[in-house]
Amino acid sequence: MSHSPEDHAARIALGDALFRYVEGRPFDLDPGSLDPNELAFAAYRLIPRVLRGQSGIDTGITFFGHELSSPLAVGAYAGDRILAETGIGPVADACQAMGLPLFVSEECVTPLREIVARHNRVWLQLRAAGPQSRAVDLIAQAARHGASGIVLTVLAPTHPRPGLQPGGFSIGREIAERGWSTIGSPTGIAPLPSFPAWSWVDAEAVAATARQLGLPVILKGILAPEDGERALQGVADAIMVSNIGGRQFGRWAAPVNQLSAIRERCGRAAPILIDGGIRNGGDVVIARALGADVAVMVRPVVLALAAGGSAAVRSLLAKVMDETAAVASWLGAATLDEIDSEQITRLPV
Amino acid sequence: MSHSPEDHAARIALGDALFRYVEGRPFDLDPGSLDPNELAFAAYRLIPRVLRGQSGIDTGITFFGHELSSPLAVGAYAGDRILAETGIGPVADACQAMGLPLFVSEECVTPLREIVARHNRVWLQLRAAGPQSRAVDLIAQAARHGASGIVLTVLAPTHPRPGLQPGGFSIGREIAERGWSTIGSPTGIAPLPSFPAWSWVDAEAVAATARQLGLPVILKGILAPEDGERALQGVADAIMVSNIGGRQFGRWAAPVNQLSAIRERCGRAAPILIDGGIRNGGDVVIARALGADVAVMVRPVVLALAAGGSAAVRSLLAKVMDETAAVASWLGAATLDEIDSEQITRLPV
Amino acid sequence: MSHSPEDHAARIALGDALFRYVEGRPFDLDPGSLDPNELAFAAYRLIPRVLRGQSGIDTGITFFGHELSSPLAVGAYAGDRILAETGIGPVADACQAMGLPLFVSEECVTPLREIVARHNRVWLQLRAAGPQSRAVDLIAQAARHGASGIVLTVLAPTHPRPGLQPGGFSIGREIAERGWSTIGSPTGIAPLPSFPAWSWVDAEAVAATARQLGLPVILKGILAPEDGERALQGVADAIMVSNIGGRQFGRWAAPVNQLSAIRERCGRAAPILIDGGIRNGGDVVIARALGADVAVMVRPVVLALAAGGSAAVRSLLAKVMDETAAVASWLGAATLDEIDSEQITRLPV
Amino acid sequence: MSHSPEDHAARIALGDALFRYVEGRPFDLDPGSLDPNELAFAAYRLIPRVLRGQSGIDTGITFFGHELSSPLAVGAYAGDRILAETGIGPVADACQAMGLPLFVSEECVTPLREIVARHNRVWLQLRAAGPQSRAVDLIAQAARHGASGIVLTVLAPTHPRPGLQPGGFSIGREIAERGWSTIGSPTGIAPLPSFPAWSWVDAEAVAATARQLGLPVILKGILAPEDGERALQGVADAIMVSNIGGRQFGRWAAPVNQLSAIRERCGRAAPILIDGGIRNGGDVVIARALGADVAVMVRPVVLALAAGGSAAVRSLLAKVMDETAAVASWLGAATLDEIDSEQITRLPV
Repeated sequence: MSHSPEDHAARIALGDALFRYVEGRPFDLDPGSLDPNELAFAAYRLIPRVLRGQSGIDTGITFFGHELSSPLAVGAYAGDRILAETGIGPVADACQAMGLPLFVSEECVTPLREIVARHNRVWLQLRAAGPQSRAVDLIAQAARHGASGIVLTVLAPTHPRPGLQPGGFSIGREIAERGWSTIGSPTGIAPLPSFPAWSWVDAEAVAATARQLGLPVILKGILAPEDGERALQGVADAIMVSNIGGRQFGRWAAPVNQLSAIRERCGRAAPILIDGGIRNGGDVVIARALGADVAVMVRPVVLALAAGGSAAVRSLLAKVMDETAAVASWLGAATLDEIDSEQITRLPV
Repeated sequence: MSHSPEDHAARIALGDALFRYVEGRPFDLDPGSLDPNELAFAAYRLIPRVLRGQSGIDTGITFFGHELSSPLAVGAYAGDRILAETGIGPVADACQAMGLPLFVSEECVTPLREIVARHNRVWLQLRAAGPQSRAVDLIAQAARHGASGIVLTVLAPTHPRPGLQPGGFSIGREIAERGWSTIGSPTGIAPLPSFPAWSWVDAEAVAATARQLGLPVILKGILAPEDGERALQGVADAIMVSNIGGRQFGRWAAPVNQLSAIRERCGRAAPILIDGGIRNGGDVVIARALGADVAVMVRPVVLALAAGGSAAVRSLLAKVMDETAAVASWLGAATLDEIDSEQITRLPV
Repeated sequence: MSHSPEDHAARIALGDALFRYVEGRPFDLDPGSLDPNELAFAAYRLIPRVLRGQSGIDTGITFFGHELSSPLAVGAYAGDRILAETGIGPVADACQAMGLPLFVSEECVTPLREIVARHNRVWLQLRAAGPQSRAVDLIAQAARHGASGIVLTVLAPTHPRPGLQPGGFSIGREIAERGWSTIGSPTGIAPLPSFPAWSWVDAEAVAATARQLGLPVILKGILAPEDGERALQGVADAIMVSNIGGRQFGRWAAPVNQLSAIRERCGRAAPILIDGGIRNGGDVVIARALGADVAVMVRPVVLALAAGGSAAVRSLLAKVMDETAAVASWLGAATLDEIDSEQITRLPV
Repeated sequence: MSHSPEDHAARIALGDALFRYVEGRPFDLDPGSLDPNELAFAAYRLIPRVLRGQSGIDTGITFFGHELSSPLAVGAYAGDRILAETGIGPVADACQAMGLPLFVSEECVTPLREIVARHNRVWLQLRAAGPQSRAVDLIAQAARHGASGIVLTVLAPTHPRPGLQPGGFSIGREIAERGWSTIGSPTGIAPLPSFPAWSWVDAEAVAATARQLGLPVILKGILAPEDGERALQGVADAIMVSNIGGRQFGRWAAPVNQLSAIRERCGRAAPILIDGGIRNGGDVVIARALGADVAVMVRPVVLALAAGGSAAVRSLLAKVMDETAAVASWLGAATLDEIDSEQITRLPV
């Protein structure tokens, strides 16, 4: 994470333990190291071409039938009411105001019903693990409350050991100690077994349930091109390229570096989202230029909420959207789809 | 920027807010990062060859009919009287004394007439945005006052949002609050719309006006080889490879890394200038070896003026010219055009 | 080494001189540099593939007839009772409890008999230098006490000069001053001549003695593929790719970077161990993916023992085994042999 | 330079201004940067091969008819009596004791006669600039006093401007102010014109004079392979690959990176020396593996003399020779010429 004044304010507001939880350094990353996902984004370079006489940049896209003014979404995080007393509500308000989708973790304390009441583009994110029936029940809950879709996260649904918790902090234990329920469980965070792990067959069966209820499905945690292809052949309506913020392991391939190969393998029919390392509008444009449809931002949102509440979240999202429009317009593109692949290069490191 | 004693003196003289404005860190650069334009220059290596028996190095070039003793110019910056009470006058004096061209921003507070009275090689730099008529009026003003030529800057004529101001400081607001006029506007800095953006047709039309008045035109903000080629086909007499000092965005391609490809595409007929990352005479020689005719330096000049006034600017320019001559002579070249392309290499990073 | 809280505790417990001895910086490494072996591991990236529907990851392997639950071993170090009053005993206990092999240096103060009494998979590591008869005697001792095998270390059996001792500390002098014996010598650490150096013929003869006594032999200190091949043609039963922790010289090739080429040259018949830079379970999986059978960890174990005794060693080993299982399971492999070579890449640096 | 305790002691002994003079940072190097010549050496990696059964490593070579026990020499530096009251005498004693050649700058205050009286392998180093007659006179002086040979340094014989003095300190002015003479001038350091620069014809004529007096000639400052080839065709008996310690310019190609190409172009008939970045015996072995015959060390010697006098110099040289022998023996070579080119690789950066 950067060492900006904003982050400093968030560190004070959250306290050190929670700040480190949000930061989420994995077990294998030296304390002095920078976030590998951010470093991966920092190595790309763009070439502006401004005299194309655009009458204005349209950064909007259509995402599952809704018009987004910017190719941006806010990603899921656990334990919302631990991180801010208000919970995720103000984030939902900000997303609603800016017209951006919000992904909500089953590990949120705020009831899904309340979130959906404040924002009409909320997706429920479930861990792809444990009994199929549990996932099916949660999908039914999502449909009942009017969620827009389902995210199934297939990478690291559970941490195999408490000591491996990113930042050394267990959000699940904290929720349990306060006697709170989450969307996914009446008693804290549902413990799910790592094994037997879900197979493609499991994912396909559960996803089919969602679609029967009219809910599109995004498979999250894809980093291999062949997995992306497989996911879009009957399992999911879209994929989210993600290494779960590098929280489990600092040496998963960076999502941004896998994007081109995944897009090439998957074609342009289905949406591809990217999660991990998105910190500003420059990252959003780079993600678009490499083949993503929507960039998903999480940590800066959580930190903004901690440091400045709803106003800070809104200001952050507006800033990222402005940056996206500015960089894209300087590229000389009328729409984000028009960015030429020759306008992006990658430094050796 | 480097952390030299000179920079330290400038930081004290300017105060922190103005120093950061000059430094101009873009929104996407981590606070601890080095200037990407400087880093790009730092990766080149030269191979000296000294026994060629030169009777002396001639670093001079002919630039639009004038003889320059060194392939160096001082670039444009805004709000001259905010940064130093004396304004740009002492810089003009130093450039006149050293025989170097000076580019003057339309955002300067000092009237163009006064600058031209102190130096006979002053170019007026305009933002290529807004109504053509406004640009035409300013070109007429430049011709009337005896400017040597026009620079049209095509990258980032306006910042889309106050919060994206480099360093978080609005020089325009500061000028307006003091009730000052600039060359380009009687009431501060003229607000120009980003859209509709100028097209090649706009640039060509405005440039034609300049040439009718006998003023050559340089198009600034080129980073794509094809844009350089297009610019020199009827729009401009020369181009300036520039990412506007990386002030808008830290991940525009570095000018020095684009230079070879641009020169190869554009041929040797028209002058190519480079702006961004020039800090010493070694950079000037590297720029020349990669195909630039003239290296344009800005920030070190502004900082020298702040720290030590006219004498410091003169000393800085003399130092850079000496360094240029020294490095070039050690290369064994009789003139800068003789530097062999095999004498320059680039490290992996 | 990392700058973790654990390392900090170890530094306090050991004192600065001993901590630096364990750290073992070679003469040619700048004080501010990171450990080159760790840096080499940090440049690899893995691609997880989780939907293969595994019913559980089996990280176990068979190693010389014993089942290991994880492909991990604890490596040899000198002067055990200098570094911790208890000596290596608690480490042996921990390895016994976790089912991991332990390599024991002939430079240990604790008698081999005592160590073997606490753990039934102890290998004795000898320096491949000096008179063959001395090595033969030690091998006979190992057989007599029930050791599981012999490691012959062929790189840097002696330091050519006291001043080149890693960390500037002579563990041998310290042992001698206390009047202690080691496994290999009744009077401190046996001084062995660098020259004449052992040849393949010497190594083969000594190894043959071991095998006659039923003890398998591992040749340690291999970095060249052809040496690995030669070692497995009649000299040793396995090889350990190692640069002796980079303690002698900071610019030996990193073991992890040599692994693929060595495995390719040596085939899959004989076990290949790797030593140097193993700090966590991610390193273990990377080593496996590149062709190693067993990863050997030393420094973290010594530091854990110093900071927290037997419990800390056990906790460290459990943590590394958990990390290994977690990363491997996220890779989607049912066994470690199934990791696809396309799932591992290496960054440019 | 490294930040070792030894360097710290030298900084205290020399004072800051002189320490910075020795450090010699060029005008274009950011204050925080590491020495590019050292960094270049740090990127090489060696592969040890120890079981070749050597009976001992012979690191000796024959250098112009003398046997050196190690491929090491001490290089020239100016103003010896400014840097240490004793002047270069104790360095000459140490070199004599260790059997290493010493190169002596014409800018030394200690008379050549005195130095030669203490050591019988002293070469006089002259700047290849100014009137041929001056160089011829100095060569005659060298012959008269029994010097072993002449070094002509062809890169940067004079600094074009006082402000470009490395470290901002003028050793010449200091000598003049004390009223001292140097070997090359009765009144301080002889000012030599940069232009007209010497040509190959000048160098050849002056070198011929030296050879007529029985003095072999080394041409110093070669970085281009074709210059090395040209130098050895009738001008010089040997070449010294050098960028003058990077003191003039931080972006000259690093000597170690040019070595292979120069050796390949020049063949194996004539000796090739390397100067710049040699800090320990590992560097010496790397230089040898890349084609150098002799490695020339300067700064560590000057700092050792300042910090600890003659004993420290002797200890430093012994340490480097020991390191050289150790690394070479671990490579498995019987002589340094036997190091296989496959045993050396270079990291990407």
